[in-house]
Amino acid sequence: MDSVWIDGEAVGYLDQRALPQRVVRARATSIDDVVQAIATLAVRGAPAIGIFGAYGVALAARRYAGDPAAFAAAAARIRAARPTAVNLAWAVDRVLAAPGVELAEAQRIHAEQRDVDRRIGEAAVPLFPTTGNVLTHCNTGPIATGGDGTALGCFIAAERAGKRLHVYVDETRPLLQGARLTMFELREAGLPCTLIVDSAAAITMQRKNIRAVVVGADRIARNGDTANKIGTYGVAIAAAHHGIPFYVAAPRSTFDFALASGEEIPIEERSAGEVRISENDDVYNPAFDVTPGRLITGFITEYGVVSAPYADSIAELAYRPNLSGLAEAGLPA
Amino acid sequence: MDSVWIDGEAVGYLDQRALPQRVVRARATSIDDVVQAIATLAVRGAPAIGIFGAYGVALAARRYAGDPAAFAAAAARIRAARPTAVNLAWAVDRVLAAPGVELAEAQRIHAEQRDVDRRIGEAAVPLFPTTGNVLTHCNTGPIATGGDGTALGCFIAAERAGKRLHVYVDETRPLLQGARLTMFELREAGLPCTLIVDSAAAITMQRKNIRAVVVGADRIARNGDTANKIGTYGVAIAAAHHGIPFYVAAPRSTFDFALASGEEIPIEERSAGEVRISENDDVYNPAFDVTPGRLITGFITEYGVVSAPYADSIAELAYRPNLSGLAEAGLPA
Repeated sequence: MDSVWIDGEAVGYLDQRALPQRVVRARATSIDDVVQAIATLAVRGAPAIGIFGAYGVALAARRYAGDPAAFAAAAARIRAARPTAVNLAWAVDRVLAAPGVELAEAQRIHAEQRDVDRRIGEAAVPLFPTTGNVLTHCNTGPIATGGDGTALGCFIAAERAGKRLHVYVDETRPLLQGARLTMFELREAGLPCTLIVDSAAAITMQRKNIRAVVVGADRIARNGDTANKIGTYGVAIAAAHHGIPFYVAAPRSTFDFALASGEEIPIEERSAGEVRISENDDVYNPAFDVTPGRLITGFITEYGVVSAPYADSIAELAYRPNLSGLAEAGLPA
Repeated sequence: MDSVWIDGEAVGYLDQRALPQRVVRARATSIDDVVQAIATLAVRGAPAIGIFGAYGVALAARRYAGDPAAFAAAAARIRAARPTAVNLAWAVDRVLAAPGVELAEAQRIHAEQRDVDRRIGEAAVPLFPTTGNVLTHCNTGPIATGGDGTALGCFIAAERAGKRLHVYVDETRPLLQGARLTMFELREAGLPCTLIVDSAAAITMQRKNIRAVVVGADRIARNGDTANKIGTYGVAIAAAHHGIPFYVAAPRSTFDFALASGEEIPIEERSAGEVRISENDDVYNPAFDVTPGRLITGFITEYGVVSAPYADSIAELAYRPNLSGLAEAGLPA
């Protein structure tokens, strides 16, 4: 199931808010539409909003062909539609660096993501037992990326490789991406899965012999500090407490090599309405938290598993070009 | 706001499922009604279901005055209405041990709980800073007990003592006792409070300078292992990770001196319907988890703060009679 695509002069997308009850496909025909779809989480998932934003900039390039100032303003609005995931800014910048061939560059980003997801999945397979239970948080499957997904793509790759994993899925309040999207995708992929409330992650680790936790990421700093969906930090602390490996599956484009640590990652706070029951409840609703690198066993990337010490291994990752570029140049990928 | 009371020949109760939108008072006129109200969580909170169960047995004693077998069966049904909290069994047994004066014994349990709650609150006050943030999980206020509450009663006592605490409240999925009941009670009590999703507890500890976590309990074993609402274990792990004191506020009646460890505590699993979004989702829905004693800084009881080593301090607690008994005998309480 594609999450974003080009649809004539518009950008098509799967409205993720309607899942799993309904499969709603929509079209963004203006820059306003693109920004709204990202801000309201109709399109979400760090890689998916990167690809969607890239297509949006391509749309703007055509729309404002004779007006560079309007084009720049439109691209800046798309780039700022959500603050935490770095993929959006990264993808917008890549398209802006390809003047005249914006659409081709956006399509290239999309194609690369499919390739990257596949490689992430392959890198993960040896990390799993032949059979056993794993746990994930939020949604990182095909609809969150352009391909098989990141963390969820790892489970799918293990299944294809003949391993039999059972996935415990945090429901992921407040917007229930785990209950709505991850359970849906795992069923589609034919993987056995069990839904739990977020706060049951610790007892599940204690009683269900969880062999690995794998999550996605929205932004990763040079020291391995990782911003991801609210709740990831608590899951990582609980995994460490139980001695369970905790992996982050993410493409190189999710690493922000400009940031020394997670303290510099902006954390989006969303509206109280997502959480409160009574109109006058005060609410603290951060959409993300930052898991310190020291709680992370490894990063599963398209270049393989990146392990501590991250100061070295992530710096090394910074110098690697896009895999697609390598492939085109005939170099070993 | 009373949670349970005697209403003529019936037992009155606040239907907690309707809060905070509506204040619904109901009457249990049969043993079926009593069992149903407990099983469906219309009446919940370990001390409150103890008192309600005690009144239920008194109701049964009158109903089956000439039929000891029917009375015993009714009492056994009430005793088994929920498995995890020990207060229910404890209160039923106390009433059964007072033949002919069942109602008086139930009223005595209720009165004692008010006294016990007050003493728990007083014991807690020195544990808090003059001003600062605290965090709690689930609901432990007046409607969960017969008095000021256990954990929530600690915050109320601190406020009365002139301290200024701000309470962060886990919403407590799946049934949202924190969002529905604790926020309601804190507002009624005039304490500043902020609602968070359960999975935001870790980032809240990291960023909001939480000075103490206080929760209630459903059953405490001799080694300090504590069953409480699902999610408590994860909160305790996160508190330990951040070096934040983690207290359990509970009356002596919540200690099960017959149990050596938490492994023997039965954990109620509730229906998938409380959690799932799609009809065919598989769900693991334990209503409680067990926090190991080593993660607990202390137990706030009517006898003061019980600290590690629990093998000694909880054994000592076992030999103390009910406070009301002490007071009647003119002994120092």
